[in-house]
Amino acid sequence: MSLIVIGTMAFDAIETPFGKSNKIVGGAATYIAWSASNFTRPIKQISVVGGDFPVEEMKMLEARGVNMEGVQVKKDQRSFFWSGKYHLDMNSRDTLDTQLNVLADFQPVVPDSYQDCEFLMLGNLNPHIQLSVIKQLKNRPKLVAMDTMNFWMESAMDDLEKVLTKIDVLLINDSEARQLSGQFSLVKAAKAILRMGPKYLVIKKGEHGALLFYENQVFFAPALPLEDVFDPTGAGDTFAGGFMGHIARTKDLSFDNMKRGIIVGSAMASFCVEKFGTTRLKEITADDIAGRMKQFKDLVSFDVEFV
Amino acid sequence: MSLIVIGTMAFDAIETPFGKSNKIVGGAATYIAWSASNFTRPIKQISVVGGDFPVEEMKMLEARGVNMEGVQVKKDQRSFFWSGKYHLDMNSRDTLDTQLNVLADFQPVVPDSYQDCEFLMLGNLNPHIQLSVIKQLKNRPKLVAMDTMNFWMESAMDDLEKVLTKIDVLLINDSEARQLSGQFSLVKAAKAILRMGPKYLVIKKGEHGALLFYENQVFFAPALPLEDVFDPTGAGDTFAGGFMGHIARTKDLSFDNMKRGIIVGSAMASFCVEKFGTTRLKEITADDIAGRMKQFKDLVSFDVEFV
Repeated sequence: MSLIVIGTMAFDAIETPFGKSNKIVGGAATYIAWSASNFTRPIKQISVVGGDFPVEEMKMLEARGVNMEGVQVKKDQRSFFWSGKYHLDMNSRDTLDTQLNVLADFQPVVPDSYQDCEFLMLGNLNPHIQLSVIKQLKNRPKLVAMDTMNFWMESAMDDLEKVLTKIDVLLINDSEARQLSGQFSLVKAAKAILRMGPKYLVIKKGEHGALLFYENQVFFAPALPLEDVFDPTGAGDTFAGGFMGHIARTKDLSFDNMKRGIIVGSAMASFCVEKFGTTRLKEITADDIAGRMKQFKDLVSFDVEFV
Repeated sequence: MSLIVIGTMAFDAIETPFGKSNKIVGGAATYIAWSASNFTRPIKQISVVGGDFPVEEMKMLEARGVNMEGVQVKKDQRSFFWSGKYHLDMNSRDTLDTQLNVLADFQPVVPDSYQDCEFLMLGNLNPHIQLSVIKQLKNRPKLVAMDTMNFWMESAMDDLEKVLTKIDVLLINDSEARQLSGQFSLVKAAKAILRMGPKYLVIKKGEHGALLFYENQVFFAPALPLEDVFDPTGAGDTFAGGFMGHIARTKDLSFDNMKRGIIVGSAMASFCVEKFGTTRLKEITADDIAGRMKQFKDLVSFDVEFV
């Protein structure tokens, strides 16, 4: 009845053309859980943090229906830390610092109480860790989705290829799709990637929206044109959380419902970028989300009436 | 009852990562006329060509209902020539050669028989030429649309600002919108540009689709994801031709109909890029166009069903 999320819970320090954050709470699984918990509960979290990770952040997530049994707390170590600086276009960024800390020897353990889960979201992590979670599940979930990144294509391609054969939905960005497939055309890239295992491929294009590929069909979701993109960190994870949250809520695996999931993901990502870190995700209400879904509908609605 | 088109009729030599053309027929008004004549006829063309421009190209357009009375033929001069090379992303290009030739001292003359026109499409040209056409019309058309480019923002901004106060729809690409407004955010750019005169602003983003801004509303049209973009030359003009052709056919100036016009423009542009020059525009049938409109509808259709 629930969704397992695996990924980092960590600290980020972010510079954008519009400001600079101190060390703030981030990490893929943090964003995914904040986003997905608007749609489905409980969420069963798998991650690792150090003794420096704020207890109140864990409590806030628990209050949202996020089960922390699978989150290992290494009291005497420090949490994963990433620092980066975005360029003016907000689509490209430089990594300033990466400190693996607790992530260096992370061995995920799936608690028994998670074994009944129907949906699995594998956040961006070393593919051998993603694989370990899949292997520990006694029953295959109804839908397994994953995120990954260029780094793993360069350093762990063998493991990544193994994971790709075991999942249903891959969510990556356009440059990652090009790198994974060796194809510049996203249509050709999608065909190549769908042959590697996943049935569905979501290519996220930041401010240019997202594409969903399935067999010979394609669906396009726009990004909401925003006056200011304040901080893109976590937008992709928030997108994935919205998508999987919607799928877990509806339990409908049709292509039409996947489309709705992509719109939900796009709507959630459009909130995420409005403030630093998870700030905006902590503020929004169900009404805010419903209002934004309506904006997406209006943004692309037209009637063809062509003779 | 008809549409006036003003713009270049010219020669292009194009290099793309997929091939290289000889000197082939191009020019903004050529693409606009080929595209718009699928939807409305007659089209009343205003341009200038040299003695080297192929008579059969003129005849083909005449056979499509394009009136050539306003096209000056300077027998002893050569037509405008542009040569360019596209980069792999097909969104950026280098100009290799520009020869103004007949365009250097072009003085457009609006024939009397064009005075009854209801719609005016000002293709990309020196803004003082665009202004001259507007001034020669005794009755203001119901809708005036224009295209322009960075070059005129740098070299003829005073004239460009004057034209902007006299038009209804501006169609430009994203980098041009940023340059014209001095704003990086396209939403902020649109607000600034709408204050300069036009009621409607279309921002074309190539493979990333197009945005239509009107008052506080925004509409997004995707680009069709294509396996190969063969030659983007003329895609923007073809888009404008489809848009104005649709508006001239329907004579409906509502925002909803502008949206349909943007989709028609996007559909036409998606054909244009499939082959070099005007080749594909010369082949397509009404059925091809209707089929592609359906593809656009499918590409973005979803039903929100969010509780």
